Amino acid sequence: MFFEGSEKKIEVIVTPGFGSLRALGREFWNEMVACANAEILSSINNEHCDAYLLSESSLFVWNDRFLMLTCGTTTLAKAVVRFISEVGADKIAFASYQRKNEYLSHLQSSAFTDDLTAIRALLPGDAFRIGHLDSHHHYIFTSNKPYEAAADDHTSELLMYHIRGEAADYLRGEHQSAAEIRSLLQLEAMLPGFVFDDFLFEPFGYSINGIRGDRYMTIHITPQENSSYVSFETNLPLEGEYRQIFSRLLGILNPGSWDEIGFNARRHTENYPAHLCLGSCALSMAQGYNVDFSHYQQLCHEVLIPEPM
Amino acid sequence: MFFEGSEKKIEVIVTPGFGSLRALGREFWNEMVACANAEILSSINNEHCDAYLLSESSLFVWNDRFLMLTCGTTTLAKAVVRFISEVGADKIAFASYQRKNEYLSHLQSSAFTDDLTAIRALLPGDAFRIGHLDSHHHYIFTSNKPYEAAADDHTSELLMYHIRGEAADYLRGEHQSAAEIRSLLQLEAMLPGFVFDDFLFEPFGYSINGIRGDRYMTIHITPQENSSYVSFETNLPLEGEYRQIFSRLLGILNPGSWDEIGFNARRHTENYPAHLCLGSCALSMAQGYNVDFSHYQQLCHEVLIPEPM
Repeated sequence: MFFEGSEKKIEVIVTPGFGSLRALGREFWNEMVACANAEILSSINNEHCDAYLLSESSLFVWNDRFLMLTCGTTTLAKAVVRFISEVGADKIAFASYQRKNEYLSHLQSSAFTDDLTAIRALLPGDAFRIGHLDSHHHYIFTSNKPYEAAADDHTSELLMYHIRGEAADYLRGEHQSAAEIRSLLQLEAMLPGFVFDDFLFEPFGYSINGIRGDRYMTIHITPQENSSYVSFETNLPLEGEYRQIFSRLLGILNPGSWDEIGFNARRHTENYPAHLCLGSCALSMAQGYNVDFSHYQQLCHEVLIPEPM
Repeated sequence: MFFEGSEKKIEVIVTPGFGSLRALGREFWNEMVACANAEILSSINNEHCDAYLLSESSLFVWNDRFLMLTCGTTTLAKAVVRFISEVGADKIAFASYQRKNEYLSHLQSSAFTDDLTAIRALLPGDAFRIGHLDSHHHYIFTSNKPYEAAADDHTSELLMYHIRGEAADYLRGEHQSAAEIRSLLQLEAMLPGFVFDDFLFEPFGYSINGIRGDRYMTIHITPQENSSYVSFETNLPLEGEYRQIFSRLLGILNPGSWDEIGFNARRHTENYPAHLCLGSCALSMAQGYNVDFSHYQQLCHEVLIPEPM
């Protein structure tokens, strides 16, 4: 029943002269997704964005940028290589490629270093590992061309591990509905005005995309006992009415540990469960992105249950 | 400069009718070690035990049992399979096979599940994973024949990650000597009466075996920055004059995190650095072994340094 929830992620911003990424059309994005070994399940759109729900995570396409997240054993780097080859590196203003640490990295078809070699052959850039190899860690590549991040370009990622409690039990249960999961996650209340598109996988697993104007949110849930993983990501500013999003999700899903990754994001830990921040890292990029990574664990001693094999 | 310090470990106790394992001779053990893709560098012995220092860790052979530890990308399971095939499963009274979680598991030639399949084809047994997949964890297989562990059969393992401070700097430095490392580790003071055999690897890395009567100790040091790992293991009872061994090693090597694994071992945390026990697990086996696993981290927030790739 194991499924690798942790994602690979690419974000590409094209140059002003490129034209619109949305105008490349559904067939183009179908092929991009197929390169990663995933497929499009459904989509929603508004005047700013096309949001695709994938068999493994999500794709968001705006006129000037796209963001693709894929989990499982997908081959996102192949899609990245295809995109760069197709449009040309000179049309790319900024690109970042990330990989979260996997539960079972040996089941992946490539390591981050392999992906890096393939991407760097087409697009020069810097890459870092953030976090110790024997704990939660993340890999990030960014192109190194001159670029200046826009003032409203911020991303906040919350990656939750070992969810527990009522919501987790429901998500692992036999009888579920997408409507009930949306209600459990309190999404309508947390994100008023968003249009959602969700999918309930068999026998477990849930994905949802939401958009409002040029803002997006996406949640992917792999509830499997002993390897559960839930990711939340948004380009909303986590302030004002959105200030409590992370603490509310932590309260609902009650993860044993979690990571936060921010790009020019505001961080606070108000109303968080009692926790220890095991490590954190700040990385400043010439293109105007301040990347923050923090690894948290609930402040309690855990009695581990031996897992028969 | 990466080297995988974490070990695979096999311990086999033969039936009283088997005769002496030591009498199998050097050539037999040479071949066993070669099966694991390692080689014997040197050896010491006394009336109870032959202790071999390997190119990757150690082999101890007593009349009724042997213990082999190998690190790096060695293939210990192949040696296990060879041994069982050669002597016959009916000659094995008890066997355990362990793997610690690796820094880079995707570089290993087999996963624990592969090893398990190969071993179980010859010798039935139980297997468990202890600890979460996204944190420190250990795999253990034990044969499930009736067997009763002897009263003095206890093993204590201390696995240290991310060593820091003066000793760590020396171990990563350019000029080292085996004598100075023995002195840094205070081995003569901690383990009076032991005969030692050690080896300093180029450019880094240090291994030492020690024996006294039927008691052994072994230390393997992989000092590389960002993936350092030091293992200490002994069948000494950690009480009386040996009560402070773990706390002294923790004081000298100052690891950011460490694990303890005990087989009928006494545990205490007196004089440990300020720490948090992130998780622990107790597993009781029908053959009379109480296996304890605990994962500790120093109680401090760590500022992580991005690692360029």
